[in-house]
Parts: sequence; structure tokens; C-alpha cells
Amino acid sequence: MRVGALWCRLILPLLILSSPFSRAEDGYDLWLRYQELPAEWRSANAKSLRSLVAPQNPSPTLAAARDELSRGLRGLLGEEVRLNEKAGRGALLIGTPASSPLIAGLDLPLGDLGNEGYVIRSVEIGGRAATAIAANSDIGVLYGTFHFLRLLQTRQPLVDLAIESRPSVQLRLLNHWDNLDGSVERGYAGQSLWDWWKLPDYRDPRYTDYARANASLGINGTVLNNVNTNANSLTPGYIAKTAALAEVFRPYGIRVYLSARFSAPVEIGSLETADPRDPAVRDWWKAKVDEIYKAIPDFGGFLVKANSEGQPGPQDYGRSHAEGANMLAEALRPHGGAVMWRAFVYSDVNPEDRAKQAYSEFQPLDGQFADNVLLQVKNGPIDFQPREPFHPLFGAMPSTPLMMEFQITKEYLGFATHLVYVGPLYEEVLDADTCQPSLLVGAAAGRDRPQIEANGRSYNNEESSCGNGATVARVIDGSLHNYSRTGVAGVANIGRDRNWSGSIFNQANWYVFGRLAWNPDLGAQEIAEEWLKMTFTADKQFVDAAAEMMMRSREAAVDYMTPLGLAHLMGTDHHYGPAPWVSELPQPEWNPVYYHRADKNGIGFDRTAEGSDAVAQYAPPVAGRFGSRAKIPEEYLLWFHHLPWDYTTSSGRILWEELVHRYDRGVGEVEAMQATWAELKPFVDPERFAETDSFLRIQQREARWWRDASIAYFREVSGCKLPAGVRPPEHSLEHYRSISFPRSLGQPGG
Amino acid sequence: MRVGALWCRLILPLLILSSPFSRAEDGYDLWLRYQELPAEWRSANAKSLRSLVAPQNPSPTLAAARDELSRGLRGLLGEEVRLNEKAGRGALLIGTPASSPLIAGLDLPLGDLGNEGYVIRSVEIGGRAATAIAANSDIGVLYGTFHFLRLLQTRQPLVDLAIESRPSVQLRLLNHWDNLDGSVERGYAGQSLWDWWKLPDYRDPRYTDYARANASLGINGTVLNNVNTNANSLTPGYIAKTAALAEVFRPYGIRVYLSARFSAPVEIGSLETADPRDPAVRDWWKAKVDEIYKAIPDFGGFLVKANSEGQPGPQDYGRSHAEGANMLAEALRPHGGAVMWRAFVYSDVNPEDRAKQAYSEFQPLDGQFADNVLLQVKNGPIDFQPREPFHPLFGAMPSTPLMMEFQITKEYLGFATHLVYVGPLYEEVLDADTCQPSLLVGAAAGRDRPQIEANGRSYNNEESSCGNGATVARVIDGSLHNYSRTGVAGVANIGRDRNWSGSIFNQANWYVFGRLAWNPDLGAQEIAEEWLKMTFTADKQFVDAAAEMMMRSREAAVDYMTPLGLAHLMGTDHHYGPAPWVSELPQPEWNPVYYHRADKNGIGFDRTAEGSDAVAQYAPPVAGRFGSRAKIPEEYLLWFHHLPWDYTTSSGRILWEELVHRYDRGVGEVEAMQATWAELKPFVDPERFAETDSFLRIQQREARWWRDASIAYFREVSGCKLPAGVRPPEHSLEHYRSISFPRSLGQPGG
Repeated sequence: MRVGALWCRLILPLLILSSPFSRAEDGYDLWLRYQELPAEWRSANAKSLRSLVAPQNPSPTLAAARDELSRGLRGLLGEEVRLNEKAGRGALLIGTPASSPLIAGLDLPLGDLGNEGYVIRSVEIGGRAATAIAANSDIGVLYGTFHFLRLLQTRQPLVDLAIESRPSVQLRLLNHWDNLDGSVERGYAGQSLWDWWKLPDYRDPRYTDYARANASLGINGTVLNNVNTNANSLTPGYIAKTAALAEVFRPYGIRVYLSARFSAPVEIGSLETADPRDPAVRDWWKAKVDEIYKAIPDFGGFLVKANSEGQPGPQDYGRSHAEGANMLAEALRPHGGAVMWRAFVYSDVNPEDRAKQAYSEFQPLDGQFADNVLLQVKNGPIDFQPREPFHPLFGAMPSTPLMMEFQITKEYLGFATHLVYVGPLYEEVLDADTCQPSLLVGAAAGRDRPQIEANGRSYNNEESSCGNGATVARVIDGSLHNYSRTGVAGVANIGRDRNWSGSIFNQANWYVFGRLAWNPDLGAQEIAEEWLKMTFTADKQFVDAAAEMMMRSREAAVDYMTPLGLAHLMGTDHHYGPAPWVSELPQPEWNPVYYHRADKNGIGFDRTAEGSDAVAQYAPPVAGRFGSRAKIPEEYLLWFHHLPWDYTTSSGRILWEELVHRYDRGVGEVEAMQATWAELKPFVDPERFAETDSFLRIQQREARWWRDASIAYFREVSGCKLPAGVRPPEHSLEHYRSISFPRSLGQPGG
Repeated sequence: MRVGALWCRLILPLLILSSPFSRAEDGYDLWLRYQELPAEWRSANAKSLRSLVAPQNPSPTLAAARDELSRGLRGLLGEEVRLNEKAGRGALLIGTPASSPLIAGLDLPLGDLGNEGYVIRSVEIGGRAATAIAANSDIGVLYGTFHFLRLLQTRQPLVDLAIESRPSVQLRLLNHWDNLDGSVERGYAGQSLWDWWKLPDYRDPRYTDYARANASLGINGTVLNNVNTNANSLTPGYIAKTAALAEVFRPYGIRVYLSARFSAPVEIGSLETADPRDPAVRDWWKAKVDEIYKAIPDFGGFLVKANSEGQPGPQDYGRSHAEGANMLAEALRPHGGAVMWRAFVYSDVNPEDRAKQAYSEFQPLDGQFADNVLLQVKNGPIDFQPREPFHPLFGAMPSTPLMMEFQITKEYLGFATHLVYVGPLYEEVLDADTCQPSLLVGAAAGRDRPQIEANGRSYNNEESSCGNGATVARVIDGSLHNYSRTGVAGVANIGRDRNWSGSIFNQANWYVFGRLAWNPDLGAQEIAEEWLKMTFTADKQFVDAAAEMMMRSREAAVDYMTPLGLAHLMGTDHHYGPAPWVSELPQPEWNPVYYHRADKNGIGFDRTAEGSDAVAQYAPPVAGRFGSRAKIPEEYLLWFHHLPWDYTTSSGRILWEELVHRYDRGVGEVEAMQATWAELKPFVDPERFAETDSFLRIQQREARWWRDASIAYFREVSGCKLPAGVRPPEHSLEHYRSISFPRSLGQPGG
């Protein structure tokens, strides 16, 4: 045996690398690559992995956990791990107390883990060392399994394990903006994964890999269709197709949800109204929901974009958002389903600062929503810009569960080709201090919720409510306001492209979303390192350099696109490339000039009390900070203040010079990323090296384009001269204005 | 070594099958799978494959041939074949006399092979047995290499080889109906392969695999964009992107072509007209063509859809198709480029039988086209229907090179999910006897072309001109009329789906197109068997049963969709599913009722002399046969004749009963295919088995739908009763009429 094994160890890798079986590194495996670990690690830890003991007659979920372990260990260790019934020395046990007498006998501390948590423990069974992955539920075991595999992939030692984990947030969802015709709004990774045409008959094996990848992060739900939705997704044919997907996803703990079109009773029912007060409308929704649950017993519920950007909604009938949401909630409640109602609204007639409108609309409704409604709020008050302050609704609706809506797909961040790791963006938002009165102590201890005042304006204007941990993360995990329901949604960047996300590095954005949804307190840096180790190599030299590149990438994009708190300066419709000059679109707030307000005298949007007073939507200490030129962090400066071009910034440079400086810094960062990547060539396979190398070349050119076009425009508007030594824009402003994309990617209505 | 090798032979397959390296059988490898051959074959033939001798400092094309051999032999033999400089016993030599002194020394009979042919010969070098793959050109060597690998894949013995092959047709092209926005008109395999957004910077490795697959069939050109074209493809940005693709394809002998929009001088130039007589227009095209050739020195030329279905063309300016084509030809001639001008025209005002219009328009222009123009003619006079008679232009334009346009994508044949092998359709068309006076003898001997009368009507009405081999194949390969240019085009079924063609069996349609383009005299059956062996397994039991299923599949589709010469009965726009009732579209010839003309008294389109006289466009013997109820082959019956419902067919059944019989036969054939496939399960991997199994289930349900809806409709129109024992349609006619596809796949303007 030894001779044979030796030969195989020498020859096998050769054959695998060079045979037609070895596919190019196309990114399909994501972070679940299970490449063989170094011999040292294996010899040090092999004693903990002598056999695998899984429950007999496992549920589909436990079978998935067992199979994932088999697959993972086979790849990571380079050999099969025996599947045993009894726990010998070095056994790896998985199961719940109910499914495994061995696990039950260990008397593990599962009490606090809830329905999704797990423990990974070094244990002894009959005096023999073993490892247990245990949970109260099968899905907890699967989550623990992926955690355990991650330990191996990141080369942790398997000794003295005492890991406990449970998710901080209940609903951890992807939002697919996928249309029934296969296009994906703001999708840059090919067509929709969902092959509606071939469903329900054909279940692409890829659906299972999608479920595996999500389960590995703890994502437990997916909204299959675009919020700009088509009522046809609620017709019987599409319900059957959705049910087929739900069956594939179910063993992986992933429930399906649908975006519901508010006017569906008119469009696919026979009704003449969708008025939520109309009994026929309510009955139609109840019958429709019953029909869905008959096909999908664990259906999750509806996501709704109503009265927003042309979508129908309750206001079409003079009803409030709460009335609309509550009607759907009523239909879903008997089945345990939830409504996620989006707060992303702005009016086509309301002259109020767009940044204020969602708060103005929804904050007064606090307490009016049914108990199975969550309000889904984007991270910032405008729309997924490279940087926005946190949304003022966070902390301001103590009686309404607020879900976070992050965007994973890079609508405003260079589509698939720019390398922008959004971990720092998410972290910045989650860590933001709302300075709202904290309920943390009470919530943590499970005490009753004290009565608090709903309107931020009535709080006193002291800093005492800051620094107490009342961060956005604590709103989202429910602890600040003792929410009974919690959730985080991410607008998916997943498509049918082989690498799922349009680029290898975009996979990190899916990854960081899932990891933070499970635990909002993780750091973007540690997640980046984890992802790099699993996706490329654990070599420290590579991981350190690549993680630094990732961590700096978001600030680079802010700098070359919209530095100093600028926002929404991108091209119309496609949202790609600079267009700060656009001023002629019919709705004022569609125009970049609405946001930057630059003229001869200055630049920026005055949202202080002298301006739109958007600052007043924040808790007073925050309002005080944002409203003060002196106190505001400079990265938000022009979001809240209109300032003269010669305003002196903290660097000592005047505003105009600082702006130019930041544009240059952004381009420089991209060039540094190129240099870093070039140095990392020895660590990366040729295919993935070439992809990133090509994309960085695109990014460099386009960072320059953003910088040059923006400087050319603001120079003209301001009448300022380029600071000495600054490279002038490559082309004329006219040139940049003339660039058009007759047909870009991912546009609505595609 | 032996012990190790033995262990590896036992353990390796296990590891490969079960390791994370073994990907699911997703069809990506197409027919180039290079699976390890059985031990018997290897031991019998190993002596012919001891080493590989390739030219030193090879051209990119010779390097591709060498690398493909290395890759293929490694997979097929399970071990590396040594790359040698000298030819020992059992060497495999590749090269041209110019690149390889060894090949030059063999004095092989390369004289008749032209620029693309090759020989594969068992030879002796210094008394040692060897094998040579040789050609006059590097691309011939690559083609020979793929042929040689095919010998192995289909398990031919490598003894006494004396193979010579050269293509019968010069231009063997794919036509991609791919739009710049990534959609594919009539595409059912996902988005366009061409990622225009990331080009030219990023060259997806898949482009190379596309080139390999095409080169393996001898396909030597590709039209990248839709014939319903967008002038933007001729702008500098897109020319650069096209040039990047051309660079990838060049080593594989594949030239790129573009569909050209006739009105481009107006749309992207600054001109006010696209009149081909306008000197500025002519200059614009010359400059544009010069610009293209500067970026792509071996650019192939333009494909043009003009004055057809709304596309612009010379008739917009009162000029003929010949004038339009010749203007473009003039611009291309200095560079060696060609114009392929499509004959697919029908007017929105002309009341003439649509089946006649292309002939009426183009036949009188014979002899008026420049010598670098080919007229591209669809296989039948309407539009890629499940069955049409051959196009009457074939044989009727002796002074104008006619190219064949086949459709590979299954616009009218069940999209991706119906299993319909189009080999028999292509074969039927190529084998059709035009009964035109033959020039075969003269052409074969290279003699001058005798003067012949251009207009078919003047031929005498005798059968003597039939049976002389004046088939459509001889028109296409140029031998009938001694064409100086020849070509075959296939409308591609290729998209970004992992399996390239939307289903595994659709790959066979790409394959058979390529093989017949090289040699129109191959049989559809032998090609099916070859493809099955390369794609699945060479097991005779599998190949026999699967080939029979494939060979019968096209007739099955004819039967369940449009039996007895019916045509164009499909749903509007999407072309999926039955809609014989459609009668209200504004242009008469868009309506199915225009084609079947069914009423209480009968069914069929009278194209005899009493009717539209379309028969007269064929040579008199063909016209005589098609025009006679007694002589016409029954599969064309209702294409040419309007007949009463009680007309007695050759089976003895009246027409109505025969129609119902054929619908039933079609459904029965699909059910037989399902049964066959179920029996073949042991021969097929689970993934590909499941895919085909699911798709056959869809096909069975939809064959039934076609049958039921058609019978329900014709029963109502005719007033006939269902024959005794015949299963009534499952639903009412109203039900079938109500089925709609709000958004189907592959529609124009998508």
C-alpha cells in the first residue's frame, strides 16, 4: 500500500494538473475550493480526522453536511476519510441530540444556540479524543460543518476547539434583481441564474452549488425576482417554477421569497383595483398566498417596492405604506411569512431634498406596521453611492423592525471590472453610532422594552447618548430597540457567468455580505483575509498584500469617483462613468447637478439647518456633528455643506486643491493595486491572474477617466486653475461629455 | 515503475471521479473530451504513438496543433506522449514541408490538397514505422490533427493510414445573430459569447475553446454580429474589440466577419444618404473598410441583410441589390474580402406568394454581382421550417455563387429543449436534385464552362436532366456551375451557457453543420455516430440506439408540428408552440392561416400553375413532380397543393385522417425517444442523463401540445370528426388559443 500511495502522491498531482480533467481556474468553486493542504498541516492534524461519524438515515440537511465534509476532507487532505458508525480515536462527529445518540451523550452546551447556532468542540468519548459539530437543528449542523471546513481551509489547528456561534440576525437574505426574461437589473455577471424557461422540469445542478455557497455563509433566504417586478411571477406557472427552486434550496436552509407587485390583483387577477381596503383585494391576496404556500410550505414572504420610481403601491389609492404592507402581512401571517417593505422612496413631485424623503415618509409610521412586517432600508439616504452617511431611519424607528439593504452588486462602483471590496463600506455603516438612547442592557438581558420617544427631535442635544454602542449594527441585530424580527438583505451580484459574480474579486463581496449578516461585528479585514486564504492561497505574503489592496480599494473608488462627500455624479441610466454635467433630466433629483450644486462660488449640498436641514433627521449629537463644518468628518463634507472653492480643508489645502488631490490619490491607488497584483503573480494561477490583471487595466483607465472628466468639469464650473504640477485632463470637457453608451449593462427594463 | 503505475491505475480513477477536481459532466468539453480509451485499444495501438515530433519554433497554428495533440493523447492514452526532435519508431510527425524537414523528406502527395487539406499517412522513416500528419499549410496540419484525434476518439485502428481530405467548400462560416447588448436573436443558450463590455482588454479563455471546437470541424470563419445589425459594430471602439477576438481566433484558421448595416454611413458617418451611387457613400465605405483592415488584416468581409424585414438597403434609394452589394464589394476587393448578400427578402407590399419572392427578386440579377459577392440563400424558400422543399434559387443562378444558409439554432424546432437532430434536414436539402443541366464533368476536369441559359423556364421539360448528380450539394460546392467562390453558413446555436448550445444534443447540430460544410457528401447517420462516440461513449449498444433516436428525431418534429408539407404554424414573434389560428397580423404572410389556407373544404397552399405557380421556379422536371398530386412526395403535399379533407393519401386514409395520424405518430416518436433514453441510462453520467431526461419530458408534453392544439383547430375549421379511437385534445381550442408567452426567449430587439 505504501509504495502505491507514494507513487500516487508523486504522479497524481502531475496528472491532475495536466490532464484534460484539470479545468482552468475559472472561479466556479468560489471559496469552497478544498485544495490539498500542506503536508505539515496534515501531519499535525491528521489525528483529529481519522473518521467521520454522521447520523444514520440522515435528513437531507444532515446528508448535505456529511457530503460536504466528505468532499471537503477528500480535497483538503488528499484522501478519503472513512465514514464510521462508531466514534473511535480522532473521530469527527456531526449531528443533533435528536439525530445522534453520540452527540446527545456529550451533553454539549446547546441551550443558547437557538435554531441556527452550533458548537464545534474538542471532546472525549470513552477516553478517546474526538471532535463534535453539534447543534439543536440540522441546519445548525450544516452551518457548523462549513465553519469547520473553513478552519481547515484557513489552516487553523484542530486542538482544544470550543467554538460557539449563532447568527445575530434572523433573516440573512439575498435580493436578486432578476427579471423573468433572464436579464438582471444592475447585474454584471451574465444572465439570471434562474432558467425560468426550463423550470420546473430541469433543475440545473448549479442551483445546488448556489445553495451550498450561501449555506457556507449562513445566508438563509433568497428573493428570486427584481423589486421592479412583474406580476407574472405570481401566476401558477411561475409558482411551480419557484417551488422547484425551493425544493433544491430547502436542504441548505434557504427559503425562497418573491418580490410582489402591488397591482397584481389587477394585472393577473380579474380585479379593477388593488386598493388595500377593498375586501376583494384582500381576499385575492389571501387566496394567492394560500396557493403559494400549498406549493412551497416554507415560503418566506414578500419583498415590496411600492410607490417608488414608478412602481404601483397603496398611495395610488390614497392609502399609507403601512396599510399596504399590513394587507400583505395579514395574508402571510397564518403561514408564518413576512413582508419586507422597502423604504426607498422619493417622489416625482415633492421638492424636498431627496435625502430626506424616506425618513419623512416612514418615520411617522413607526408603530403602525403589523408584527410580521420589516422595513427594509438602504444603508444610506440616497442610493448605494460609493460613500453615504448612514440612513437617518436607523435608530429612529424603535417600534418597527428595520432591515438593512446593502448592495453587493457594484451598480455605482465600476460594475464587474473595478476591484472594489465593499467590506469597509459595510463595516463603516454598521459601526456608525446613531447616538440614539440605548436599550442594549435591557435587550441583552431579555427585559421588557422601556417606553421611548419615537421622534429623534425630542431627544436632548447631548453627546451623552453617543459612544454607548448604539450603532447601526445594534439596530439591525435588534438589540437597540429589542426588535422581535431582524434582517439584513444584500442585492446580489450573482449571475450565470462561470465565476458567478463577474470577477473573482467580486466573489469577496458576496462573501463579506454573508459573513457580516451572520455576525455584524466581524471585521472587514479579517473577512478579506479569510476569503483570500480560501480562494487563493494561505501564503502570508500573498494574503497580507492582497488584503491591503482590498481594504484600500473602496476608498480608492470614492476618491476617483466622488471624493469629499460628493455623490450621484454618474452617467444617466447606466450609472457607469462620470457625468457631473448632467442637468437636463426632467426630475431634478435625477441630475448630478442637483447633488453637487457646483458653481463659480462653491460646491456641495447644504443640508444644515440653513439648507435642507436633513441633518435634523439624525439624533441631535449626530446632527450637531454633521451640521458643523468644524466637526464633520471630511469624508462627508460636501454631502452636508456647500462651501466656497477656497474653503480651507484639514490638510491646509483649499477645497478645490483638496478635490483635485483626492481624485489624483484615487488614480494613484489603482496604479498601486496594479503594481501589487503584478508582484503577486507567482502566487496565482494564470487564468485568475490574467483576469484580475486585465480588469485592473480597465480600472486604471477608467479611474483616470473619472478623474479627468470630473476635474475638467469642475474646473470649468469653478473657474479655478489647476494647481501647479497637476496633470491636466487628457481630453477636453467636450470629449468627456460626448462619451455615450448606447446600450450598457444591467439597465432596468432590459 | 510498474507497481506505482498499477496503483495509480486502480486508485486514480477513483480519486478523479470523487475528488473536487472532477467536475460534473456539464458539456463544456463538447466532442473534444479525450476520455481515456479502453486498454485493448491502447495496447493494440500504442506502438504508433511512442513520441510526437513537431516542428521547431512553430507558428501559433502549429503550436496549437502540437498542444492539441499533447492534450488529446494525454487524455486518451492516460499518459504523456514524449515530444521528440527526431523520429524514432512509432513517431507521430506533424508539419508542412516548409516547417519540417522530416515531412519534406517524405515526399507526400500534397499537390491536390490545396491550402486547407491534409494527409494522414502511415509512413516509414529510416526503416521505422511512423505516422505523418502533413499539409501544405499550417492550418491544414491543425485540421489533420483534429482528424487524427477523431480516429482515436472513435477507436479506429492506426494501421495503414492513407487519409486525404480537403474541404469541398471554401467559406465554412458560423453566423452569430448576436446583438451588441449581449442578447442573441433566436438564441437559446444564454447570452452572447462575446463580452463586448470587457473586450478588448479581457479575452475570456472561452474564446480559445470556441476556436478549438470550430477548428476541429474545419469551420474557418465567423460572423460575429446579428444580420439585424447595429451600425455601432462598425465604430472604432467595436472594431478594436473585434480585432481582439480576431487575434484569439487567428491561430485556429478562423477569420472574423461582420454584419454590416447598409445605412451605417448615415447612422455613424456624417452622411445624409447611404445611396450606393453616391460617391461620398462609396468613399465612406472604402475608408471604413480600410480602417477595419488596418486593425484586422485578415478580416473576412461583410454579411448583409438588406431591404428585408425592415432593414435598410439599396432599394431605399431605388438601387438594386446588385448595386448595393457591388459597392461594398468594391471597398473590400483590394483587401481580399468578400460580401455575403442575403437572399432572404419578402416585401411588406408585394402580394406575390412569399415563397416566390426571393427568386423573383434575385434570379434576374444573375451575372450582375461583382466577383467577390456571394448570395447567401436559406435552404428553403420560406424560413427554416421543420421541412421545406429546397430553395428554387439553387441551380437557377449559374453565374452567381450561391452560399447555403442553414439554421443550427432551433428557432422553429423547440428551442434548446426539444431533441431534434438537424443532420437529416441538411442531408435532405444537400441531396435534393435540382435537375438543372449539369456541368459536373466539365467542372471536375477543370474545363471551360459552357454557355448555359440562365432562366430555368427555357429548359426542356424532360427528366433527362435529373439523376445526373445536379444536387444542391453540387451547387454549393461550386461544381455544378463552376463557381469561383463557394460557401456554407450556419446560424449558430452557441451562447454563454456552460454547455454552449443549450443542451448536450444541440451540440450535435453544431457538429453536423461543421462536418457537412467540410464535406457535404457525408451522411447524417455516420456523423451522428461519430458525435455520439466522441461525446458519450463508443459502446455499440449505446451508439446504435442513440443514433437511431437522433436520426428519427427530425421527422418526429415535422410530424408533431407541421406534417404533410404544412409550415409556419407557430406562435407569433416567439416562434414557440402552435398557433395555426393566427390570422390578424397586419402583413398577410405573417399569419399562419396564409400558409395552411384551411377551411371547410380543404387545406394547403396551391403553388401549382393553377395557384401561385411557385413550382415554375424550379427546373421543369422538379416543377412537374411538385406540381402533380400523383407524383409529389407526400412530405411536401400541402406545401404545393390545396386539397379537400377527404382527398385519399397514399396510406389509403383520407387527408384529415392522415393529418391526425401524423400528429399522433410524432407524439409517439417522442415517447419512444423517452423510452430509449431511459434504457441508455447505464451508459451515461448522471448529469447528462438527467438533462436529456428532463428535456425529453418537456418535449413530450409540448409535442402533445402541438398535436392537441393543431387537431383542435383543424377539427373546428374543417368540421371533420375525430377518427374513431383517436384521443381527443386534452383541452378546448380556446385554452390553446389563450396560451401566451409574455416574454419568450431569443426574440428580435431583445
